[in-house]
Amino acid sequence: MRKEILKEPISTEKIPAIIRQSPSVEAMQEQLREYHDHDIAQSFEHLSRAERNLLYTGLDAQSLADIISYMDNPADYIGEIVIDKLADVINEMDADDAADLWEDIDESVQVKLFPMLKPETRRNIRLINSYDEDEIGSLITTNYICIRRSLTIRQAMHELVKQAGEKDNISTLYVVDDRKCFCGAIDLKDLIIARENVALDSIISTAYPYLTDHDKISDSIEAIKDYAEDSLPVLNKDKRIIGIITAQDVVEAVDDEMSEDYAKLAGLSAEEDLSESTKESIKKRLPWLIILLFLGMVVSSVVGAFEGVVAILPVVICFQSLILDMAGNVGTQSLAVTIRVLMDENLSGADKLRLVVKEMKVGFCNGSLLGVMTFLVLGIYIALFKGYAMGTALLISGCVGVSLLVAIIISSLVGTLVPLLFHKINIDPAVASGPLITTVNDLVAVVTYYGLAWLLLIEIFQII
Amino acid sequence: MRKEILKEPISTEKIPAIIRQSPSVEAMQEQLREYHDHDIAQSFEHLSRAERNLLYTGLDAQSLADIISYMDNPADYIGEIVIDKLADVINEMDADDAADLWEDIDESVQVKLFPMLKPETRRNIRLINSYDEDEIGSLITTNYICIRRSLTIRQAMHELVKQAGEKDNISTLYVVDDRKCFCGAIDLKDLIIARENVALDSIISTAYPYLTDHDKISDSIEAIKDYAEDSLPVLNKDKRIIGIITAQDVVEAVDDEMSEDYAKLAGLSAEEDLSESTKESIKKRLPWLIILLFLGMVVSSVVGAFEGVVAILPVVICFQSLILDMAGNVGTQSLAVTIRVLMDENLSGADKLRLVVKEMKVGFCNGSLLGVMTFLVLGIYIALFKGYAMGTALLISGCVGVSLLVAIIISSLVGTLVPLLFHKINIDPAVASGPLITTVNDLVAVVTYYGLAWLLLIEIFQII
Repeated sequence: MRKEILKEPISTEKIPAIIRQSPSVEAMQEQLREYHDHDIAQSFEHLSRAERNLLYTGLDAQSLADIISYMDNPADYIGEIVIDKLADVINEMDADDAADLWEDIDESVQVKLFPMLKPETRRNIRLINSYDEDEIGSLITTNYICIRRSLTIRQAMHELVKQAGEKDNISTLYVVDDRKCFCGAIDLKDLIIARENVALDSIISTAYPYLTDHDKISDSIEAIKDYAEDSLPVLNKDKRIIGIITAQDVVEAVDDEMSEDYAKLAGLSAEEDLSESTKESIKKRLPWLIILLFLGMVVSSVVGAFEGVVAILPVVICFQSLILDMAGNVGTQSLAVTIRVLMDENLSGADKLRLVVKEMKVGFCNGSLLGVMTFLVLGIYIALFKGYAMGTALLISGCVGVSLLVAIIISSLVGTLVPLLFHKINIDPAVASGPLITTVNDLVAVVTYYGLAWLLLIEIFQII
Repeated sequence: MRKEILKEPISTEKIPAIIRQSPSVEAMQEQLREYHDHDIAQSFEHLSRAERNLLYTGLDAQSLADIISYMDNPADYIGEIVIDKLADVINEMDADDAADLWEDIDESVQVKLFPMLKPETRRNIRLINSYDEDEIGSLITTNYICIRRSLTIRQAMHELVKQAGEKDNISTLYVVDDRKCFCGAIDLKDLIIARENVALDSIISTAYPYLTDHDKISDSIEAIKDYAEDSLPVLNKDKRIIGIITAQDVVEAVDDEMSEDYAKLAGLSAEEDLSESTKESIKKRLPWLIILLFLGMVVSSVVGAFEGVVAILPVVICFQSLILDMAGNVGTQSLAVTIRVLMDENLSGADKLRLVVKEMKVGFCNGSLLGVMTFLVLGIYIALFKGYAMGTALLISGCVGVSLLVAIIISSLVGTLVPLLFHKINIDPAVASGPLITTVNDLVAVVTYYGLAWLLLIEIFQII
């Protein structure tokens, strides 16, 4: 029974069927062995409480630990497992998964559960939970092979076989010196193909990159990706290895980081998924919307100041939305680019200046092009459909075109400077979300447009 | 010389210094061995052409291949390498890296280079480039260990040691049956700790997930992440393994996929980075902006239809931007949530309905709350600052509040339905970018607001 990824509905039906129809616990165990732990985890929501109980008692702690590690919401089920089994399960889990799960357990249960865990598990949970969730230390697992530098090839191989019984991440062996400080890594492949008479030192890669426990995840993510290793050691300030992060952790961290930026660009305070309740969704979206509502009212009162212009020349209001929208769009583009650049690279002052200059150049070019198009198209439109003479029509559309150009240039600038400024003062630049930038640019665009319309059309050319 | 991630400026200075100051090619090779390939790759841009030549001749093909695999823009440098060395380098690269690099080589060089490659390299490049860049097949590497199911544990270990000389990804061994069809995988750890007298079958995980070569990357990415394996086999329609994708490939693919969605939400046609020229940036942004400009003109002409309302009651224009912006913001939130949900899960018809209903509920609740706030705050504002009687002021602000509620509900609906529709007809839902949804919602909001203002304020209550 091989399983193709993405054919999930098949196994989420088959697994419950096995649990219901198998004649004995042993038969169930045997049949479930044909399925991937991820698929068994996904089937939990299709099982009744009693059926899940069959799994809690019928599966050994290691299997349950593997299955629970694949769950999206383990908190929904761990309360159903009897406490001594739960202790066994947590002992079998990877340190990072155990620490994550620990957070989901009721405090009253935690108190009784903690003394039942192995000392090593207790130490790991305490260690990982001592880090903030945005620190590298919170992602580590202690599931790795560590050997001393002074070993021979044969001893190292022997040590590997000994440790591999307990540990899963064996493709890289981490090497420590006599003071237990990290001094490099060995690719398992090199150990396997090494001749017994060569020195262990010759296969240690001493340039192996490492991370520091208190580093911010968001600051490190690009570098981690760049080094493209299967796993990376995490050191404390004494250069001792406290754990490793695996490529899988990196996949998750990259996904989280990007999802968060994505959500913020859309003006959501956090990522949402389908299972969330309406109330939770409202809570995530409303704060931004209220802020934006009041910012919108500020824009409204500024528009109100130009009521006089509109009363004299009602045609100008037609193009307000055009200029505001375009300013918002351009600003959001610049914002998105700047946020990604800030995340991807360590910028020097000169780089930042180069970015700002480039964004303004792009703004100027796009603005000029769009401005000219607007001038021509709207000029014809106003003359044909609004009943103005061609000269007057072109004056009005020229005013719209120039405002568009100015608004686009300023929006590019705002969309670049605001995230740079936020980053400088250590606020996540993604907080400067699309809607925020749009509202700020609205203000600029309104003043530019109505100001210019008043100056050009009413004061100078007096077309009314 | 151990290297901490993120302290890049140190090594990008040190590596060029080594190349310049080392007394001999051997000394340079020796000293460079202390640095990570990624760091050497990053230092290329700080070297002169002559200094890079020292590397091209001084380093062996395997080292150069590793370094080039870490480059962001290998195309900038491969033209500098003499053709026979380049052939050696490509022969040493992973199949996916070689295929990527191949695309960057001038056609005139390709013609001469191709016959100089090993037959296996030629076959791999042809195979990988036969897939579209959005297909799983385009990500594969042939750098994996494959053994036959009929082997004993001892034979399998022997086979591993033999193949490990050539292959790097050894932590999972893929198993094929007599017809060369994929039939499972062995965790290297299990092989290492297995006793010689057990059957190989007992350590083969037959439930190991796999991918199919023509699957779309964007459709598979979530599933791949969910299975959290170090590598996954990719099969063709005959169930033969054509290659594997590694966790590192997944990191890259997740990052690419999310970056693309992010860029599209911001109305960019593709992701940009700092090194891009102004011209390239303009090219990426202008198409969307031109579309949005013309959509904006449509909105303008609709606003124009309500010029009469504005001429009678100029105060209404103050709040146009408020309603349009809020409608846009809410629509973008719904859009972002829907796109993420569509990417993360395989939705049934019932799920989709549930999503739409939920979005409308969220829209209704947020809209009601924001509508009431607007009604009260603007009522007071209009009475105090615009010189209307309290009754009239509340009528106007009530009209704004009701329009806001209606616009928000409809925007939630549009922001959910448009990406669902796009997904249904097999267009990437991310194409329905934030700016597009904003413009569509503008139209709805304008008609609602001015329509209601005309009906309520002018026709029914005749406040002028």
